[in-house]
Order: sequence, then structure tokens, then C-alpha cells
Amino acid sequence: MNDLGEFVQSRATERPDTGPARLLGSSAGRAVLVVAVLLATLVGAGGLAIAGGTTARPAELAAGAVTGAAAPSAERPEGCVAPDRRLDLYAVELPKDPVTNQVRLGYGLTPQTASYPGPTMEMIEGECLAITLHNQVPVATLEALRTDAAHPLGVSLHVHGVKYTQMSDGTTHNGSFVPPGGSRTYVWYAKPRTATSQGTAGYWWYHDHVVGGPHGTQGLRSGLFGGLVVRRQGDVRPDRTYVTAFGDRQTINLRRSAEADTCDPVNPVPGPTCIVAKKGERVEFIVIGLGDDMHTFHVHGHSWADTRTGMVEGGNKALIDNTPVIDNKTLGPGDTFGVQFIAGDSVGPGHWMLHCHMQFHSDLGMSTWMHVLDENGQMPPHGGGHAPTPPASGSPAPAGAHANHR
Amino acid sequence: MNDLGEFVQSRATERPDTGPARLLGSSAGRAVLVVAVLLATLVGAGGLAIAGGTTARPAELAAGAVTGAAAPSAERPEGCVAPDRRLDLYAVELPKDPVTNQVRLGYGLTPQTASYPGPTMEMIEGECLAITLHNQVPVATLEALRTDAAHPLGVSLHVHGVKYTQMSDGTTHNGSFVPPGGSRTYVWYAKPRTATSQGTAGYWWYHDHVVGGPHGTQGLRSGLFGGLVVRRQGDVRPDRTYVTAFGDRQTINLRRSAEADTCDPVNPVPGPTCIVAKKGERVEFIVIGLGDDMHTFHVHGHSWADTRTGMVEGGNKALIDNTPVIDNKTLGPGDTFGVQFIAGDSVGPGHWMLHCHMQFHSDLGMSTWMHVLDENGQMPPHGGGHAPTPPASGSPAPAGAHANHR
Amino acid sequence: MNDLGEFVQSRATERPDTGPARLLGSSAGRAVLVVAVLLATLVGAGGLAIAGGTTARPAELAAGAVTGAAAPSAERPEGCVAPDRRLDLYAVELPKDPVTNQVRLGYGLTPQTASYPGPTMEMIEGECLAITLHNQVPVATLEALRTDAAHPLGVSLHVHGVKYTQMSDGTTHNGSFVPPGGSRTYVWYAKPRTATSQGTAGYWWYHDHVVGGPHGTQGLRSGLFGGLVVRRQGDVRPDRTYVTAFGDRQTINLRRSAEADTCDPVNPVPGPTCIVAKKGERVEFIVIGLGDDMHTFHVHGHSWADTRTGMVEGGNKALIDNTPVIDNKTLGPGDTFGVQFIAGDSVGPGHWMLHCHMQFHSDLGMSTWMHVLDENGQMPPHGGGHAPTPPASGSPAPAGAHANHR
Repeated sequence: MNDLGEFVQSRATERPDTGPARLLGSSAGRAVLVVAVLLATLVGAGGLAIAGGTTARPAELAAGAVTGAAAPSAERPEGCVAPDRRLDLYAVELPKDPVTNQVRLGYGLTPQTASYPGPTMEMIEGECLAITLHNQVPVATLEALRTDAAHPLGVSLHVHGVKYTQMSDGTTHNGSFVPPGGSRTYVWYAKPRTATSQGTAGYWWYHDHVVGGPHGTQGLRSGLFGGLVVRRQGDVRPDRTYVTAFGDRQTINLRRSAEADTCDPVNPVPGPTCIVAKKGERVEFIVIGLGDDMHTFHVHGHSWADTRTGMVEGGNKALIDNTPVIDNKTLGPGDTFGVQFIAGDSVGPGHWMLHCHMQFHSDLGMSTWMHVLDENGQMPPHGGGHAPTPPASGSPAPAGAHANHR
Repeated sequence: MNDLGEFVQSRATERPDTGPARLLGSSAGRAVLVVAVLLATLVGAGGLAIAGGTTARPAELAAGAVTGAAAPSAERPEGCVAPDRRLDLYAVELPKDPVTNQVRLGYGLTPQTASYPGPTMEMIEGECLAITLHNQVPVATLEALRTDAAHPLGVSLHVHGVKYTQMSDGTTHNGSFVPPGGSRTYVWYAKPRTATSQGTAGYWWYHDHVVGGPHGTQGLRSGLFGGLVVRRQGDVRPDRTYVTAFGDRQTINLRRSAEADTCDPVNPVPGPTCIVAKKGERVEFIVIGLGDDMHTFHVHGHSWADTRTGMVEGGNKALIDNTPVIDNKTLGPGDTFGVQFIAGDSVGPGHWMLHCHMQFHSDLGMSTWMHVLDENGQMPPHGGGHAPTPPASGSPAPAGAHANHR
Repeated sequence: MNDLGEFVQSRATERPDTGPARLLGSSAGRAVLVVAVLLATLVGAGGLAIAGGTTARPAELAAGAVTGAAAPSAERPEGCVAPDRRLDLYAVELPKDPVTNQVRLGYGLTPQTASYPGPTMEMIEGECLAITLHNQVPVATLEALRTDAAHPLGVSLHVHGVKYTQMSDGTTHNGSFVPPGGSRTYVWYAKPRTATSQGTAGYWWYHDHVVGGPHGTQGLRSGLFGGLVVRRQGDVRPDRTYVTAFGDRQTINLRRSAEADTCDPVNPVPGPTCIVAKKGERVEFIVIGLGDDMHTFHVHGHSWADTRTGMVEGGNKALIDNTPVIDNKTLGPGDTFGVQFIAGDSVGPGHWMLHCHMQFHSDLGMSTWMHVLDENGQMPPHGGGHAPTPPASGSPAPAGAHANHR
């Protein structure tokens, strides 16, 4: 193993030899047009809502793309000549959990719109994104969350799936975090596929890796995480995107039981606690596992292919016939996957359960609803002569309804 | 999100506007010939046995297909003009577990043949099946299993993978369950693949979703579940099908240790507690996860592709070369998958262990055997000069055998 | 099920009717050239190291191949006319775990080089390997590890994925284990794919199945396991191979915290506790789950396709576009998978975390590093003016470093 050479303690340099010129020279030709796709979010009463169908088109975003400029404070991965787009992201403290009184932190595109999960990020392969994270979490809160006084105070941004250098790792050992009151720019590159690099199109997440300890366990537990989807050129964009993070204490997006579904029966506002779609819409879930426990993601009446997107795209018969179709998928902490299907496909409108199939998890409230309305946006009566049963206060278990139904 | 319209509380109607005419008009053309494939079961002493190779051919079943008639008491999913086949299914109480004294319930095609797992259902894509569930479980038993007096008494039929409307969801919130003494017809549609719908061919399960609470935890724990396989037109049918449900208390099909394998050494009767095949037979497992725990499904001497069926069908080299071949697969509650392989392929006859590879699970008895006989149906001696070692009373751990073997 | 015939108690024979002639007649034609690929190992201070790029070529090994000879003491699976290669493997006791004082056992190609994990085995589809296991573990140690006095004393070799007969199963019920002081030859056949047999190319493991009980739980816990990779003809061979076994007590290769990474900063010796590569090298992980717990395998900055090898080989666009790319994968006990990627691809050199993403697991020390050096074998400074931060004594949590970095 001598060919490894020495594992030398190199000298610090103010500017590592990884400037734009070198990157241009050493990176593979970027044949893919870099386009920037802006995250579009709507904030509802209960948190963040993602607006399906309203994501800006590349053309609209070209104006916002940053071209030719170097990232100011973070090294760029090879292939990212310069960020195509910039975002500011704020880490703030939110009101405590109303049920458990736990600390709640959130990421937001503005301090006022921070939420848990944080804003859903969307990229297209080929794009390079610079995100400047501002740590506005009070020092006292960060101090209260750490158990080891030697551990530094700060928040960070660690991302899965896309490419970034050690400077954007979001960890303590390389100093890539943000002390209280500070800011730091992280650079993510959605590298396209090459012969030996598999591409970055997929369903990912970002999260803190520093709060409370070197793995960010307290940051995650408090709400510092969000979904990321990287699309491939040519991918069909879904009409609606939801993030469902399955976590500890039998929670979906850190809520359980009545808190997991706060949909207003008359005017539902899509968001982390209100999953709603019209029949025929292409719905997308970014499913995230976090915390300490195993879970399974199950939706009633709907199924998907166990592929990158949940669909088998293209007409390859061998691929179609060999690909499993599932309606329940195990996920451990750190796992993410994407599920796309047509809402109400064949099964029609209804209040369709979405829950963890571990029985004690669902029994303890790890269950919510996907409300599928008809094509006109109405929830029709279900067959059999009964009034519909919208979830009472979002309760996953409206016991007693229709007890004598046959 | 205004385009969703209102989430109105619609009025109850005796007959929702989803009758056959509307369905005919709105459903996609059903180009696939609908064929009915009858479940063939053999009941042995220890429960239900599935007879490989004896499943009736479509031609035989055409006579039994119900065409043109409407389902009497349940809405049909789009694509199901009328059920092609009808079944009665009975939920009954069975003798208590001999070891734990737990309540045991079972589904059966007749009350007398109820078992756990229940009868294995088989469908072909394109088929629509109406199942009338009769709840014959005593009221006192259902009362004893619920912990919340407000929860309704009943049993239900919830299915994975295939298409059904809210009326066939098997849940309390839409009243799709069966009170004591009642009956209810559930309609399942094995929808074929379309461009945006992935098809329903796969390995699934059905189970109660009501007994004890809104997720049917007590129903599942007591035995109200069974396997479902949906085949695609052209699929090779295996010679033998076994259901192995991995559940709580380190159980396979709710049994462990000696109860998990009750094969008679002289005249083995295939069933939930006796897995046996002849060398060269194509064996199929419907593997189900249920309950609260994670498990892994492992078989000695045999492996399979991680595809829809366990085989890579067709000669697509890229697909073959990229598909993982495995002999151990993690499954969480609600997960189901299918495994097909050739019994004894290359490895020959023998008593091959089938167990959960979580060490404390297998040590506590979550282990059974796949007995592979030779082509003549004999269990030959194993090499090395020893008499064969059929499992003593099905014990998964016949300790002491051949202690001095070399 | 009468066609199964009787499950007869056959008579013992000194030599079962499975000699070479019969095997020749009954086995499918072996069209694949059988080549033997020797395991190449380097033993470092901390255990076993696998030398990437130094695995002997088939041509060099042809001389060592055993052709035409019958295996002396174990039956051969169909397709294995005679072993192509022979190995001796020794099971020995090693010094107790320095932290927990637990018993440590190891497999080695010599008694002196035994380690945990044991030597990584490498085969090519078509090859047949005979391994003679010598049990040199002291009787007193084996006695101390069993809780049931009726359980026989011994060690064994059970393997996943490849083909073997009951005589090479490594279990008690068929006597295929090795009493103290004894030896036994196990025969593994890396069967190539046929129409109904999926091939054996993949990532597997071998382990004891006898120590302490019929599932070898104490053998596994003590260190009697190792990785096996079976390659397909034409597979690209990686530059470096590492085994990472995720197990109980939050361990990687049975170590955690500082013990999990003992890399010398100046002269790192690759091995079970030192994962190091140069940027651009093709690195391979054989990931193994063992014990009682679920885990997830996550690497910072790197991702892979969820395929047989971690790469999508070939240019099939449908396959490429539908295959998930991941950087975190759940594994249960008994699961194994392979991950190949290019070290530092786009992200450059650095100390990249490799950890279980279950938060309490990583917090308790289930975390190590993949040290990616630059093309010259140097660890450059990371950007931003800081000295690099090699892990202090391999600590996965060098808290306090760069606390004020921005």
C-alpha cells in the first residue's frame, strides 16, 4: 500500500489550489445546459406548503442565475465552475412543540418562513447551487441542546446525494459549520452521470450535522432538516410534492396523531400537515427517515414502482416486468426515496391513510391522510349512503364512525 | 392552492354516481383479457396448504366468471366493470395458541377451513374479484380484543397492491368493515400497467384493519391475514407456493421453535408449518412482514434476484448484470415480496434452514426448514456416512446431532 | 401432495452416490472458463488489510488450480467437477477486546494472521473453491461460549450466495462443523447464471453457524465472519476493497469510537480499521449486517447506484434512468451488498465520514472515516486556511476543531 504515499499534515493555505481556472481545466466538459430551478414555496398556517405546478420554468430563472462569478467563501466541487443560483437560508428557533414542549428549530428562505421540514429544494442535474446559511438560533438554545461542553456551538448544512467539498460538509472536524450569529456559504453540485459517476438525480435531504454533537442529533430532533429532489433533464415534473419525514416518537414531520393532519375541511392548505390532491394529479413524496428508529411508508389505495421516481419510465418490457411494484417500503434513518403516483388512480377520491405499518407506531399516532378530491376539487360522498368522514381534527383514528355500516 | 376547490361536506346519497355506465365511460379500455384464476388450497392437519401445480387453468375458470353483473354492495374501482369472480371468506375464531394461549382468528374459504395465514389468493392482471366477508367471530372475543370501548366491533378486509375504492378499504373511518354477524363485499381489481399506473402484478397481502383499534393490530396479531399474488399475463407459474409471514414474538406464521415445522417425516403435508419440495421444482414464497419488528428472510443454499419474482426473466444482459442476487432480505411490517427459485438447484436435497438472521430472533426459534427431497420424493442420506437428520418434532435446533462429525 | 413421495429415513452410506462421474453427467455444461483468483491480503498492525490492485491475475493462478481431483471429504455441488483451488483457513482465539474484554475469535489463512473480519474471499463465477477449516479454538473457550451443555462444541464455515451441499452447510443438524482440534473441507461453487438460476456474482459473507448455539450467535459476536465477493466474467476489478460489517454494540467490524479508525496519519495501513484511498481510485465496500440490530450504511460526499456493484454498467438508458442512486442504505443482519464508487469523485480529498445514520448509533461511536488522499497520496489542506484535521486517535468526533470557522 506504499503507493498511497504519505498522509501528510499539510500546511494551511489561505487559498487552496482549487480556483476556477483549475476547476475549468480539470473538470469534465459540462455538456449539460445548466439551468436553475427555483424552489417555490407557499407558507400556510401549519407550516410550509409546496406548490405543485407552480415551480418556475428554467427560462424565468435564467435571469437569476449567477454566472461567471466565483463562490466567495466555500470551495466548489469539480464541475461547478460557478454557482448558477444562490439562496439564503436561515436557521431560527420556532415556538416549542405544543404537545411535548420540545425545542423546535427550522430552516427558512426567510427567518419568518422557517418551518420543519425546511423548504424543499429542487435542482436539475448540471446545476450548481450556493446556499448561504445564517445562524440565528439563540446561543442559549444551542447551549441547552448540547450535552458536552467541549462541543462547539453552531448549526450547519449537510446534504445527501449531491456533490460538495469538505468545506461544505457541514461537520465539526473540518470546521464547516456556522457559529451563532454567523453565516457560511455551502455549494452543492448536482453532477450529471458519467461512465463511473452515477449522477445525482434522486431524492435526498439536507440537515444539520452539528447541533448537540458531531452528528447533529439534536438539530435533527428539533427540526433542522428538509427535502431535496434532483431531477434529470427530461423528467416529468409532478403536480404536487410533499415531504414526509418518518422519525422518532412515532412522528411524521415531527408530529403525530391530531397534529399530523391539520387540513381544514373547507379550505385545505397543502403543507407538511395537510396532504391533499385532486384525482388525476401526479403526486410526489420525498420520504425521509431520521432519528433512531426503523419505519415503513405505506399509503392506502396507491402503489408505485421501486425505481428512482416510483414510475417505470420508458417502454422497456424487461425492465417493467422485473421491477417490483410496492405500496409499503422500509426506511431507516438517513434513507430517502421518491414516490410518484397518480392520485386516486382507479380508486377514486377519498381519505386515504398514509401511515407507518409498524403496528405500535400507527397505533400511537404515526398516521396521517392523503385527501384525494375529485377532479373538481370536491370530496364526494363515499358510496353506500354515508356522509363523508373528514378526519375529526386530523385524527388518524376517527373511531366510532359508521360502526353499523354494511 | 385555490385550484383544489372546496373540501366540501357532501350530502349522503343512497347510490353514488359511480354506477357501471359511468365506469364504462370513464375507465380506460381494458384490452387485457380478463381471466379468473381460482385459488386452490389443500387443508392439512396443521393448517392450510397450497397445492403447487394444481391451480386451475383460465379456461376452466371462464365458466365461473361473473360477467355483466354489478357488485351488490360495494363500489367498484375504475376498470372493473363487473367482478369476474366471487369468493366467500369467513372470519372465525380458532383454538387458542397451544403455547401462549393467545386468541387465534383465521380467514377461510369456509368456516371449517379457516387458518392463519388465511387462504392464499391468486389473481391475474386484468381480473376483478369480489369477496364477501362474513364475520363469524364471537362478539365477546372482539370485545376482549379492544382496549377502547369507543372503537367499533367488527372485522375487515384490507388489501395491499390491488385497486379498490374507499368502500373496500377495510377501515373504520369510511365504515368499510363488518360488524359481528354481518357480511360485506369487497372488490379488488388487479389493474394492468398503463403509462402512469405501474400495474398490480406482485406479492401482496390482505389483513384485518379494525380488530382492537383503527389499525387492526389485534386482528393481525391474532391471525387475520393472508397472502395475495397477482400474476402478469405470461408469468411462469411456480410448482409450489408458500406464505411465510415474519412477525412478532420471533414467529413465522405466528409459530416458533417446534411449532414452526410440523412436517411429518414420512408423509409431509405442505402448509404453513411444513415447507417441502422436490429437487427441481420451482418454489415460490410470499414473504410478509407484520407486527412491530424488523426481520430478515434468509434461506440456506438458495438465492434469488431482487426483482418482482426473484427471477430475472428475459435475456436483457444489462438488466441481468446490474440486478443484485441475494439470499437474505430485510423486511419491515407491511412489506411483502416474492421469492422464486428452483429447489435444490445445484445444492441438492437436504433440510435447508429458513430463518430470520437477526441472531436473537433465530436463537429464540424464528427458524424453520425447507425440506428438499430428491426427484423421486425421497430424502437421501447426506454425504459423509451419516443418517439424515429430519428435524425432531420440527425443532429448528436439533442440538447434539453429529457432534463428532468431521 | 402425494407426488412428493415418502420422506424416508434413508440409510447411512460411507460414500454417497455423488462422485465425479455422476456429477459430470448430471451437471449442466460448464461453458465458462474456470479461473482461480487468489485472495490477496496484507496484514497490518491493526488487523487485516486488503490490497487493492494487487490481486493476482488468473494466469498466475492457473498453476495453483487443482484440476481433475476430487474433494476428499465433502460432497460437491452440481457443476463443481473438482475444486479449482484450495485454501486452508484457521479458526483461532485472538486477544480479548481491549475495551470490552469480550472473547475475540478470528479466521485466518494462517493461524498467525487470523483477524476479524477474516480474510476477504474473492471468486469468479464458474470457479469451485475447497476450503479446509482447522479448528484451533481452545475447548475451554468454546465451552465458555455455549449456554446449553447439550450443544456440541465446534466451529464451522457457513457461506452465503454460492452453492454448496448439506455437507458444507456449516450447521449442527447435518453435522457439517468442526470439533475442537479437527478439520473439515467445505466446497463452494460460484455457479454462473442459467435461465432459472440467477448466478452467484455478488457480495456475500461467510461465518460460523455453530459456536454457542445452532445459529452461531457467539461465533459471530466473537469475530468469526468475513466478506466474500463473487465477480462475473468481465467485471471491472476495483483498486481497493474494504469490508465494513455493521454489528451490535454500535460497532463497525466489532469496533467503535476510537477503535474503529486506527489509521496512522503518516503511514496509513489499509485494513479493517483504516479506510484510505487516493482520489480517482475505484473503491469497493463489502457491507455486512450482523447481530441483532438494524443499521444504515452512509458515506459523506459519495453515492452509488442501488445495483449489484454500485455502478450501472453499460449504456442502457432506461436502466440508468430508473435505477435509484443512494448514499445511505438500510441493512439488517445477514444482509450484504456491494458499493463501488470513485474516491473523491468531484468532491476531492478529505476525511469523509462513514457511519450508521441511526443517530444514537453514530453518537455512540458507530462512525469511522474514509480518508481520501489526493492523486499524489497526500492529504491536502482543506480550503479556507485551516490545517487538515486528521482524526485524533481515530476519534469519530474530534469536537472543538475549528469552532470559530466561517
